Amino acid sequence: MYDVNKIRADFPILAREVNGQPLTYLDNGASAQKPQVVIDAVTRGYAEEYSNVHRGLHYLSNLATEKYEAVRGIVARFLNAPSEDEIVFNSGTTEGINMVAYGWAAPRMAEGDEIVLTVAEHHANIVPWHFLRERQGVRLVWVEPDADGSIPADKVLAAVTERTKLIAVTQCSNVLGSIVDVKAIKAGAGDVPVLVDGSQGAVHMPVDVADLGVDFYAITGHKLYGPSGSGAIFVKRERMDEMRPFMGGGDMIREVTRETVTYNDPPMKFEAGTPGIVQTIGLGVALEYMMGVGMENIAAHEASLAKYAAERFEGLNWLNVQGKAPGKAAIFSLTVEGGAHAHDLSTILDKKGIAIRAGHHCAQPLMDHLGVPATARASFGMYNTTEEVDRLVEGLELCHRLFG
Amino acid sequence: MYDVNKIRADFPILAREVNGQPLTYLDNGASAQKPQVVIDAVTRGYAEEYSNVHRGLHYLSNLATEKYEAVRGIVARFLNAPSEDEIVFNSGTTEGINMVAYGWAAPRMAEGDEIVLTVAEHHANIVPWHFLRERQGVRLVWVEPDADGSIPADKVLAAVTERTKLIAVTQCSNVLGSIVDVKAIKAGAGDVPVLVDGSQGAVHMPVDVADLGVDFYAITGHKLYGPSGSGAIFVKRERMDEMRPFMGGGDMIREVTRETVTYNDPPMKFEAGTPGIVQTIGLGVALEYMMGVGMENIAAHEASLAKYAAERFEGLNWLNVQGKAPGKAAIFSLTVEGGAHAHDLSTILDKKGIAIRAGHHCAQPLMDHLGVPATARASFGMYNTTEEVDRLVEGLELCHRLFG
Repeated sequence: MYDVNKIRADFPILAREVNGQPLTYLDNGASAQKPQVVIDAVTRGYAEEYSNVHRGLHYLSNLATEKYEAVRGIVARFLNAPSEDEIVFNSGTTEGINMVAYGWAAPRMAEGDEIVLTVAEHHANIVPWHFLRERQGVRLVWVEPDADGSIPADKVLAAVTERTKLIAVTQCSNVLGSIVDVKAIKAGAGDVPVLVDGSQGAVHMPVDVADLGVDFYAITGHKLYGPSGSGAIFVKRERMDEMRPFMGGGDMIREVTRETVTYNDPPMKFEAGTPGIVQTIGLGVALEYMMGVGMENIAAHEASLAKYAAERFEGLNWLNVQGKAPGKAAIFSLTVEGGAHAHDLSTILDKKGIAIRAGHHCAQPLMDHLGVPATARASFGMYNTTEEVDRLVEGLELCHRLFG
Repeated sequence: MYDVNKIRADFPILAREVNGQPLTYLDNGASAQKPQVVIDAVTRGYAEEYSNVHRGLHYLSNLATEKYEAVRGIVARFLNAPSEDEIVFNSGTTEGINMVAYGWAAPRMAEGDEIVLTVAEHHANIVPWHFLRERQGVRLVWVEPDADGSIPADKVLAAVTERTKLIAVTQCSNVLGSIVDVKAIKAGAGDVPVLVDGSQGAVHMPVDVADLGVDFYAITGHKLYGPSGSGAIFVKRERMDEMRPFMGGGDMIREVTRETVTYNDPPMKFEAGTPGIVQTIGLGVALEYMMGVGMENIAAHEASLAKYAAERFEGLNWLNVQGKAPGKAAIFSLTVEGGAHAHDLSTILDKKGIAIRAGHHCAQPLMDHLGVPATARASFGMYNTTEEVDRLVEGLELCHRLFG
């Protein structure tokens, strides 16, 4: 039995008030709150066990290294990666995708080569490819969502040509909540490598990269109930072997002379300089926490929240929900035709202690496609409740009365 | 009056024992410990005030944004940068220098163009330039330290030719402790931009980038008593205007369409995706803490430690100190000719609770130059004491007896 109140009790910030109201935190798509175990791990990391990692021989260095490196195995387990050597630590999905763009894509793409991506991508999975367009003439080939927000695998595959060198696609739209069948895309893509932006997907459902078969799968720690500035990317061994280093510095080298440099073995080859030691240790604790609750259980809880929210929104005939794909995640982008602007919704809801996000959600091509300048997005997490859905609906009704 | 015991009391980890002995932490060159105010800021950041930053309209988002963005002004004040818009946040010096290499240097350097750097650079200030050598035929021009470890400005300037496009130099060697007069280098460099690796320099002395006149000055938060994964780089406005974006993603754009992308104003143009929110807030607190103690006071305290340590080491005629430049920082790289290996020294000292680092310290060209495979490095910080120097000397004497 999923005890959401027990889970809520693990997140200290959820007990606080905002504007004299209990906090209703529905901005999980932007970033998630942290359980006490994560906060404690960070505090302990600094107050009792801190040192730089790798190559130190003293006690604290060994201790920090052991805790830090153990996270590689935790991430591998979380994603069911065949080997922890296929996990590269970084500061989040943005760095992960940029590493692939600079280290893998740039050296192997020529003018006219194509990257297939969907109109629903987050800027993190658009701008690095625009760089390749600007700098070396790569073509971006866009796949539009269906009217209900679905992004069918066959539509993505239909965009593949003999010039396609990469398919870069989200597993879960951060605006529409649509789930993309990346396994089917990979299965149908032949030799074309598939990069998955797992920023949202890994938060809301079990991920098994071995089963998905994809080449790159990027995650962001701060959305996974972990510390800010933490993250990782799964890179299939064959792709890792093809990838040149992204950032240069300490730790990623084998030998540096005045004339030459040779590189460390992967994954260290892709991790330059002192890493985000304590936040990575915290990420490990966050993933253990999620796995302890169970990703299937989290997914089921959020599915019931999504169903309940969709039903309640259905009752508000002045409210548009952008994206109604079957099985979508509990992410709802709301607009009111001819009524309150998304930013007004957010501001009024905030007075009621309800945190949602208004804006383009780093997905401007999708906003253009939807024909809206912005949406008000309520995005749910493992600790949210149906009562919070009710509170949101009450708040929206107030907005409607004020602006309607 | 510098009350080192009062300062020590601010750092909780210094009260702990290691191997049954009080911790003597002399590995500050690798990373520094954190005062309680920094740890508290991080804890509070997660437990009470956490949200993603920028563009959020709700209370927590505004609060986090305000605290996060305030750090830009703190860093500007710490470095005496003319404007906080010349400060780019990142995860540390490695990312900072890579940003300059990819965003500023790569697009404007052709085959045969030269970068002047010293043999004493850390790999973070070598490998990004080796990338340019490997990928576009840039020449690296090396300046050797003098026999005493000094790196005179005129020697660096003598290496400049009409093909020189950049001088990339540390302000303080992480192995030798030598201080480089980067102001004189900039003054003599004419139109050639100067990048300073301030990883060590900014920790040990007051820095005034307006006075130094340099173009790039990179710092690392975790060495500045701040959280891991925090950092910043000062980029002079003219250089910022010349620099193209490094990483692509959210926040750094103005507008993204399917066909084009336009970028945000600097410094945001160079900060892609959700940043290291809480660690950056912690960095601000760390810099405020240092400025509260006073950088002049810290420098004076460390100078007296350096003098005392140098005198004590003089008494050990079997011990070599690598680098004896006048006015050097309290960083001592030790070797024992024909005696214990650096790693053995570190391991035995650790039994006495003394944390030093053994290895090449991410400075292999310097190790080659010195003719040693590794050194045992004791590096001091604002909280270290002469008693700790004595403890180190006792430990070294034990090593000498065991291996001598």
